[in-house]
Amino acid sequence: MISAPPAVTGARLSDIDTPALLIDLDAFEGNLQRMANFARASGVALRPHAKTHKASAIAARQLALGAVGVCCQKVAEAEVMVANGIADVLVSNEVVGNAKLDRLVHLARRAKIGVCVDHPEGIAELEAAARRAAARLSVLVEIDVGGRRCGAAPGAPAAELARRIAASTHLTFAGLQAYHGSAQHVRDYAERARAIAAAHACVAETQRALGEVGLVAPTISGAGTGSYALEAAGAPLTEVQPGSYVFMDADYARNRGADGAPGDGFAHALFVYATVMSTPAPERAILDAGHKALSIDSGMPVPWKLPGAVYHRPSDEHGILDLAGCAARPRWGDKVLLVPGHCDPTVNLHDWYVGVRGLATPEAHVAYLWPVDARGALF
Amino acid sequence: MISAPPAVTGARLSDIDTPALLIDLDAFEGNLQRMANFARASGVALRPHAKTHKASAIAARQLALGAVGVCCQKVAEAEVMVANGIADVLVSNEVVGNAKLDRLVHLARRAKIGVCVDHPEGIAELEAAARRAAARLSVLVEIDVGGRRCGAAPGAPAAELARRIAASTHLTFAGLQAYHGSAQHVRDYAERARAIAAAHACVAETQRALGEVGLVAPTISGAGTGSYALEAAGAPLTEVQPGSYVFMDADYARNRGADGAPGDGFAHALFVYATVMSTPAPERAILDAGHKALSIDSGMPVPWKLPGAVYHRPSDEHGILDLAGCAARPRWGDKVLLVPGHCDPTVNLHDWYVGVRGLATPEAHVAYLWPVDARGALF
Repeated sequence: MISAPPAVTGARLSDIDTPALLIDLDAFEGNLQRMANFARASGVALRPHAKTHKASAIAARQLALGAVGVCCQKVAEAEVMVANGIADVLVSNEVVGNAKLDRLVHLARRAKIGVCVDHPEGIAELEAAARRAAARLSVLVEIDVGGRRCGAAPGAPAAELARRIAASTHLTFAGLQAYHGSAQHVRDYAERARAIAAAHACVAETQRALGEVGLVAPTISGAGTGSYALEAAGAPLTEVQPGSYVFMDADYARNRGADGAPGDGFAHALFVYATVMSTPAPERAILDAGHKALSIDSGMPVPWKLPGAVYHRPSDEHGILDLAGCAARPRWGDKVLLVPGHCDPTVNLHDWYVGVRGLATPEAHVAYLWPVDARGALF
Repeated sequence: MISAPPAVTGARLSDIDTPALLIDLDAFEGNLQRMANFARASGVALRPHAKTHKASAIAARQLALGAVGVCCQKVAEAEVMVANGIADVLVSNEVVGNAKLDRLVHLARRAKIGVCVDHPEGIAELEAAARRAAARLSVLVEIDVGGRRCGAAPGAPAAELARRIAASTHLTFAGLQAYHGSAQHVRDYAERARAIAAAHACVAETQRALGEVGLVAPTISGAGTGSYALEAAGAPLTEVQPGSYVFMDADYARNRGADGAPGDGFAHALFVYATVMSTPAPERAILDAGHKALSIDSGMPVPWKLPGAVYHRPSDEHGILDLAGCAARPRWGDKVLLVPGHCDPTVNLHDWYVGVRGLATPEAHVAYLWPVDARGALF
């Protein structure tokens, strides 16, 4: 089932039902503009990752500010984006098995679709699926640039995959996917810069190997919210794929920029709004937001503008606020804002975004209700 | 959006798209029957918790085996259950705020609805909502029996709440909610038994205090999969609320029974089915199931019948199998079964159950596709 939205347009903050996924529209629009400005100034193409927001309404706003298209991680996400008017989608991931591939090549007849591969059998499957649909697919070779997740080994092994793609009838070799996932969350700037420099050395090694088989990578795509600035200027990447910058989360806010500043200048724009549903002791408030309303894989959510309050001991439908160190304790029935520990899997738990204008002002009100239309798009 | 189901009825195991939520129907039916037999033999009413499975199709099977009704944790879950024919629902949780309360009292005009309370203001809100709808609500006082989450203090404070309920015009004092959440996961049987004995002492203290204000608790509800056996025989509870027994998970399997046996005789019946989408190194396989397909809040999922394989380092859409100690390594494109660390929040990530008959046999096939129809029912 899809839940009814937890508010109506125009509602006041206190009338939003909880637990709800709130966007501070002012902070959010600032984040979108900041990244768009950066891409324009640096000359790198911006292809934001839609896995973070899973909402075609947000993708459309990113494109309106100059993004060349979006990334998706799943074919089912790409289907939602294409169905809602996004004409250029890179599935920045391997797609395995005919059930998904037949959906992918069908999409490729209606939109510009790219996909990644890191295995010869993957290329054979892609070619067979494209042949069945009389479609043409753009294929990037994913290389492991240090994240030790997916990806072919840089250099000759990756170039051999590129050669196979180029020799296929229904596939176009479109370039390299060179995303370093774990480097995004290295807190120290210099250490993060070293990891990214090593990733770029992998790209350069692969470019040389491609040259030896007579190929050039037209696109080199990668980077995330933790590394986009390091990966644009003078680096081999032609396009960047940041996702979390639209919202930020407690985890990314722990990153330090070149000047030591937290969160690289992006603002917290995503919150889980929760109600104090029980106050069994003065120093303990129980919130109606637990594992089914927020994800704790990258740490606990952080209470917003509630100094001294600590969210801990979540269970499925509850979270506990330790108020021992909190001077302005929320009371029974009050509502509080939480900054999620990790935005992407938190978003995936909700059916609706509640977009609030003027969040920090007395005029705060619901301006938009956007469906998380690719929520649960697992396939 | 609701995803299309990942399989069709009659499909073979290998044709199920991934990541999918699989039920081993044979194990599942055995679990249902085992708990039903226990309740019948012990004379305690069985009110299984639907927060675990969030599926009216499963609730209907529990009622067909003798359950008196179900528990829900959210009004929106109760709405799904009532809409699908479940006539008796206890919302085993506090419900705060008029948006939810107006939905709750509306439901109470169509089905037998109970709800919990632990605060005087909660009673006032319930009474006002029931008055608005000209409805009548059964209200249980939740007492904190040691879990330190919600719940009034046992004894006189709880009895005072009961007195207020009984004095209300539209509310009926229905009894006590006495669930000890954290005790469910105490591994050692004797230690768990001590926690439950302490919980029962809280119930007895509250029963005495109720007597002093001239009240009796008609229903005393509580217990979960980790404590149901301890809470039925000779204990004050009149009904038990286990949820996870239908599926079990890696966390509950770490509990030890009175005889030291793991998992108390229930079988693993729930799996996340995943595909090996990348094999970048011989000892490393990348699965297409990460944070958006399974929950790690109670530990990592455990590969099923794949000795020596360890699932670790999940990211949003990927999980890594460390195969260094695994003799029968899965290959690129193979599919594997994972036992979720925690069943409830894992279920909440999926739109469909794929019910498989004969999972361990060559005749394994999809027999049922059940919607997780209360998935995302947050309100």
